[in-house]
Amino acid sequence: MSTDAFDLRRIGVVESALDDLDAAPKQGTEGGAEAWIALDPALRDGLDGVAAGSRLLVLTWLHLGDRDVLRVHPRDDVSNPLRGVFATRSASRPNPIGLHEVEVLEVEGHRLRVAPLEAIDGTPVVDLKPVL
Amino acid sequence: MSTDAFDLRRIGVVESALDDLDAAPKQGTEGGAEAWIALDPALRDGLDGVAAGSRLLVLTWLHLGDRDVLRVHPRDDVSNPLRGVFATRSASRPNPIGLHEVEVLEVEGHRLRVAPLEAIDGTPVVDLKPVL
Repeated sequence: MSTDAFDLRRIGVVESALDDLDAAPKQGTEGGAEAWIALDPALRDGLDGVAAGSRLLVLTWLHLGDRDVLRVHPRDDVSNPLRGVFATRSASRPNPIGLHEVEVLEVEGHRLRVAPLEAIDGTPVVDLKPVL
Repeated sequence: MSTDAFDLRRIGVVESALDDLDAAPKQGTEGGAEAWIALDPALRDGLDGVAAGSRLLVLTWLHLGDRDVLRVHPRDDVSNPLRGVFATRSASRPNPIGLHEVEVLEVEGHRLRVAPLEAIDGTPVVDLKPVL
């Protein structure tokens, strides 16, 4: 059996004008703004092959999520019946990983300008993957 | 600034006949087999709303990945030019999180039968999300 906990490292951070959860749309396609992803400069080689026009999945750590919640009202609307967190994209879940599909608009060294990205300013980034 | 490391917890484990990386297809759509996801029984409430026919994203921890590699030959084929890991789905990357899109075939309490899933037996599962 494998171990039960893993050391997830911040590889970068979201820089965004969004600084408030209530202002953030629930999903990126609902008006998510442009944002910058500032990658750790030591990881810049990992961006080889990422260019303007690339579509990426951005994995974030939703540090404001509640890790002890197993059922939520979808979209924080109490008129929606409770659902298991694994049937929702709620930020509250045992491992509050966010998943955001974005287009790369610009690459500037270790920094990527992307849209749409609904994560608030300061959100840690933990992985980037190409959309297949 | 947020902290630089996060405590990712195993929420379940893959049970599969695949027990060897070389036997595992590179992507699920290339012949990934059926597998079971055995969720921690304490997290069963989180599956409310997940049913046969649901499409899920399974996030795994690819514990055999090399976290210090920033460029790889895609698909482990040295005739492919080196690319940055963030432009590939390589298991070797700073945070070796795997992302697998599957269909739920059966729900049995805290256990899900899914396909296709190319992860080897014993791979830790760290999150489940609905496909939007």
